[in-house]
Amino acid sequence: MCSPKSFLLVLGLGGTLSAGAQTRLDYPIQAVPFTQVKLADDFWLPRLKTNTDVTIPASFARCESTNRVKNFEMAAAHQGKFATTYPFDDTDIYKTIEGASYSMSLYPDAKLQAYVDELIAKVGAAQEPDGYLYTARTIDPAHPQKWAGQARWEKERELSHELYNAGHLYEAAAAHYQATGQKNLLTIALKNADLVCSVFGPGKRSVAPGHEIVEMGLVKLYRVTGQAKYLSTAKFFLEARGHYPGYDPKSTDTWKNGSYWQDDKPVVDQREAEGHAVRAEYLYSAMADVAALTGDKQMLAAVDSIWNNLVAKKMYVQGGTGAAGDGERFGANYELPNATAYNETCASVADVFWNQRMFQLHGESKYVDVLEKVLYNGLISGVGLDGKSFFYSNAMQIRNGQRYHDTEPARAGWFECSCCPTNLVRLMPALPGYVYAQRGSDLYANLFISGTTNLVINKKKVQLEQQNNYPWAGDLRFVVRPAGAPAAFNLLVRIPGWARGAAMPSDLYTFAGGPVAAPVRITVNGQPVAYAMKNGYAVLARTWRKNDVVAVTLPLETRTVQANARVLDDRGKVALQRGPLVYCAEWADNDGRTSNIIVPAGTAFTPVAKPQLLNGITALTATVPVVRVDAAANSVSTAPRTLTAIPYYAWANRGKGEMTVWFPAQVTDVDLLSQPPAADKAAGK
Amino acid sequence: MCSPKSFLLVLGLGGTLSAGAQTRLDYPIQAVPFTQVKLADDFWLPRLKTNTDVTIPASFARCESTNRVKNFEMAAAHQGKFATTYPFDDTDIYKTIEGASYSMSLYPDAKLQAYVDELIAKVGAAQEPDGYLYTARTIDPAHPQKWAGQARWEKERELSHELYNAGHLYEAAAAHYQATGQKNLLTIALKNADLVCSVFGPGKRSVAPGHEIVEMGLVKLYRVTGQAKYLSTAKFFLEARGHYPGYDPKSTDTWKNGSYWQDDKPVVDQREAEGHAVRAEYLYSAMADVAALTGDKQMLAAVDSIWNNLVAKKMYVQGGTGAAGDGERFGANYELPNATAYNETCASVADVFWNQRMFQLHGESKYVDVLEKVLYNGLISGVGLDGKSFFYSNAMQIRNGQRYHDTEPARAGWFECSCCPTNLVRLMPALPGYVYAQRGSDLYANLFISGTTNLVINKKKVQLEQQNNYPWAGDLRFVVRPAGAPAAFNLLVRIPGWARGAAMPSDLYTFAGGPVAAPVRITVNGQPVAYAMKNGYAVLARTWRKNDVVAVTLPLETRTVQANARVLDDRGKVALQRGPLVYCAEWADNDGRTSNIIVPAGTAFTPVAKPQLLNGITALTATVPVVRVDAAANSVSTAPRTLTAIPYYAWANRGKGEMTVWFPAQVTDVDLLSQPPAADKAAGK
Repeated sequence: MCSPKSFLLVLGLGGTLSAGAQTRLDYPIQAVPFTQVKLADDFWLPRLKTNTDVTIPASFARCESTNRVKNFEMAAAHQGKFATTYPFDDTDIYKTIEGASYSMSLYPDAKLQAYVDELIAKVGAAQEPDGYLYTARTIDPAHPQKWAGQARWEKERELSHELYNAGHLYEAAAAHYQATGQKNLLTIALKNADLVCSVFGPGKRSVAPGHEIVEMGLVKLYRVTGQAKYLSTAKFFLEARGHYPGYDPKSTDTWKNGSYWQDDKPVVDQREAEGHAVRAEYLYSAMADVAALTGDKQMLAAVDSIWNNLVAKKMYVQGGTGAAGDGERFGANYELPNATAYNETCASVADVFWNQRMFQLHGESKYVDVLEKVLYNGLISGVGLDGKSFFYSNAMQIRNGQRYHDTEPARAGWFECSCCPTNLVRLMPALPGYVYAQRGSDLYANLFISGTTNLVINKKKVQLEQQNNYPWAGDLRFVVRPAGAPAAFNLLVRIPGWARGAAMPSDLYTFAGGPVAAPVRITVNGQPVAYAMKNGYAVLARTWRKNDVVAVTLPLETRTVQANARVLDDRGKVALQRGPLVYCAEWADNDGRTSNIIVPAGTAFTPVAKPQLLNGITALTATVPVVRVDAAANSVSTAPRTLTAIPYYAWANRGKGEMTVWFPAQVTDVDLLSQPPAADKAAGK
Repeated sequence: MCSPKSFLLVLGLGGTLSAGAQTRLDYPIQAVPFTQVKLADDFWLPRLKTNTDVTIPASFARCESTNRVKNFEMAAAHQGKFATTYPFDDTDIYKTIEGASYSMSLYPDAKLQAYVDELIAKVGAAQEPDGYLYTARTIDPAHPQKWAGQARWEKERELSHELYNAGHLYEAAAAHYQATGQKNLLTIALKNADLVCSVFGPGKRSVAPGHEIVEMGLVKLYRVTGQAKYLSTAKFFLEARGHYPGYDPKSTDTWKNGSYWQDDKPVVDQREAEGHAVRAEYLYSAMADVAALTGDKQMLAAVDSIWNNLVAKKMYVQGGTGAAGDGERFGANYELPNATAYNETCASVADVFWNQRMFQLHGESKYVDVLEKVLYNGLISGVGLDGKSFFYSNAMQIRNGQRYHDTEPARAGWFECSCCPTNLVRLMPALPGYVYAQRGSDLYANLFISGTTNLVINKKKVQLEQQNNYPWAGDLRFVVRPAGAPAAFNLLVRIPGWARGAAMPSDLYTFAGGPVAAPVRITVNGQPVAYAMKNGYAVLARTWRKNDVVAVTLPLETRTVQANARVLDDRGKVALQRGPLVYCAEWADNDGRTSNIIVPAGTAFTPVAKPQLLNGITALTATVPVVRVDAAANSVSTAPRTLTAIPYYAWANRGKGEMTVWFPAQVTDVDLLSQPPAADKAAGK
């Protein structure tokens, strides 16, 4: 999110970064850094505040109480016994520090800063003299944790995740440095990265990291320091994939053929989203980074193809990815079952990372459309409104008494493998960095969140303010305020696919009834203006005067969504969408049941603002047929009832019960159930 | 079915066999041979006639038209190219000859005999000089069929099935000799068996035959000839199992760990029914044979344990076995899904063989109870009332538009792998051999089929006649006719488990409402008699006078059956049984649907004789709630309707449509279907 420049130069700037002349290859579009964007809205800002006030303290407290901090203390003392389950538990501390760093730039907090500095000191004390940092081995190198392997990196392909730990350290260190200007964590990270770069590379050791993220992390260190070795080692790790001779290419077992961790083919030959979803989407993010930073056209072609596959064949309607709980994997094309949907929260986080990079590469709004879908639905469903209860997997359907994964249908405070909570911790406060982007005199408005940003466009300072009630209303207002004289630049406002009749930038989901009727309307200072559409953006080219007001009216209507007929589980069914929000029916609003609701074609929905419900939502209501079963009388009947649907992200905040995203539009038949659905059909992780 | 005696002795008797002094170990109980039992009933005799008039000619015609006969002609000429799909297609000819042989003893037929002799000549011509008989190799030994292997027996463990062909040859030859007294086929079989015995054995070649049956076949040759080598080679093949070092015992893949063909453990260490169901049940039959003929207590303990496992955990309520279509395998314990039930017809045939042997070993009626369940339900469902349409797999449930295996829900005339039709061909006319059995002065009446048998008991000739309308009525009549003076012996009448309140000799299925109220009543010449129950038999010890009449009244009531709660798919459901017959509901009698029927607890059923329906059946009717769906109105409702159930064996004779064996007793919920169930969910074979 910042241009590459030398470490010292960055240090000289005191940690704030500005766009400079691009002397090297990079993304053609740069995001406006989160440090320059100040949110002032009712939807996201309270969430960021909750993340700061509740989630981050809870996360640090759990890192302490579950012995994650103790592991570092023991490593520093070289005594004790690794005290958690996984060798990658170190990363929860790194990720929480990353989130806290973003957060402190929004809400300065001396006490938090002191605590973080104390933690960073513990991390540093656990680092070995040559830079190696991995508590699972350092505590007792003669008896490393069982998955760590006897020697360093020996089990990296399998389960040690040493480079995964390193990657999260680099991500955290870059964020901490960018947010606070301090270099205490960065110094630790660079020392470790220097070791990694000295061990791995052409003519040295090679491995395809078992769980990707070190590649993204090294790219961030390259951006911060400008040192080419971090970029070249990232590229080396990408190019290491697909060359291990120990797999059985004839096996259909994804563990045995290497596809589980995207190691079955060289990355430039990969064309579909395969294997473990989080690993994959971290890999694809890094492929985008390296393609942008090195101009590698083959890598670009591969990642473009993989994105098309994912968006056309492997994404749930609420943006979730990774259909299969067995291995936390993508399913086959169009394999998107509702009852057993896995949809790991971390995969949604990774998908936001990846789609932002794809946008920065191509400047097309479809990537931000997907990012928005993930963000407003399948991602924030991963954390409860209380900020301290989490989903690891995000269900598409809950039947009475059924439980498919983890804690569904009720959130948990923490997990033994607790990647998802800490990934939310770090994503949420970074959100301001996803609102705007720039390319020369083009200013992209990607997300619609009230607040202000201070920019430099064509060397002139400009403030832009957004005023809206998104996602509840479609009326957007942008107030432009050049600091001095009128400023000529192009404001590119994303016109979301959903406002142009496209539920998805593919034929995977479509709105029933075709394109929406109401057009998008745009005025400047109250006067309708002509504008060109380019790559999904309304291009407003103008010499802007202070307090020019752009008003954009998006047709925020309730639409029913149909899935591609190849998605067997959604055939004959509809989902509900209003603006970017996908809705669901939950037991609490529907007489305790949702699996009995029919939504016939032509059902008229009424949006109803409910400011007291679920921290304030707009619900959707309609009168629909509902099936009732009287078990004692062995009778089944249909009667009209009010369906109340809530935004998907808000489910599971009022106790356990049924939830449904897809509703049969026409009931052609029923299956008689003679027992409640079996409980605890855990499909494993 | 006959005592062992020397080949010449048998020849001297002109092919008829009588019980003699047992000088060697054998089954303690001997079945009364089919040649001594003449059926005269309305249920089985028409089926045997149809088998003779329709099935056998159709089967021979298909052996001709599908090139199975041509393979033998080409082998004789050593030219051409193997013209069918499988190297074991030879067996369809052997099995049809076997069926025709039994049939000809019931219905002498000079034309058929001439045709069979002609076929036998073709078989003999295809035999190589040393006795080897396997058209897939002999046609062109340099280019054998692809699964045959380059050298003899080389692929026996995998797919060549050379010993499977041999086993069916021996079975057919023994039956042909026993039924007709001719030795033309027997001579061919013995020549082949002599080769097999010279190749395989201690210090010679060893293999666990890939598809068992040669073991049973060799035992039959031992019975016919008295030559010990056939028995010892059968035992050798049994004991060869579980010693192949090439498997991976850690693999869970049944092909890789050898359990698919029961080769993972020595047979004496096997305790559960595992792997391919037909292979397994042929193996277990041979284990019973060898245990009886050699007194091997370890083998007896193994086969007893396997039987208990099968009957308590792996059998469908209609007697079918082999739940999994993938590999035609037994499922895990209690894994008995209805929608995808495989239930190969051949497995039912094999189960009849095996249970007869278990009865002969132990003299307990539970084995015949299982045999009867299989025979009256899941076995004869495998052939249509027309005698020329067949099921390879036998479904437990058909939903509109769904097809799981083969041709379900409509029968086919023949299959590429056509083992099932020809297995029915040979079993049906052998049925008279399952009605009675003897041990000294004990005469067992196992099956209740009108007709007469002529016996020698304690050296006195006795005729026994059965007069009943079984399975439609529970009143049995036995007329005893000693040829001369009154004869003292024990008549043991099997009192079926179902008449004593037990749906199954295990807790796998039970009758709802506990033991039946009506007692079994037995009179002799109209006077109630006291009798002892022994091993499930009513023991009538008496000095019998000519035309003594035994009347047994079995309480033939309609019962609802419940499955063990561990059978997930049957939870909260009931099946219907009346006497030995398990019933089903079929679309044709139920307004086109059966998946919408509820059978509440306490439903009163009325048996209704329908002489014109399905060749004459007693149907069951009741008024029950039925769910109706009005798709246009999106409404669901329940209304009373008449349920008409037919015997399971009679389904799929009136076109395609729904069929259900298990009915929900109480509907606790419904699943709304927005599309017809997907068609052609073939689960593979």
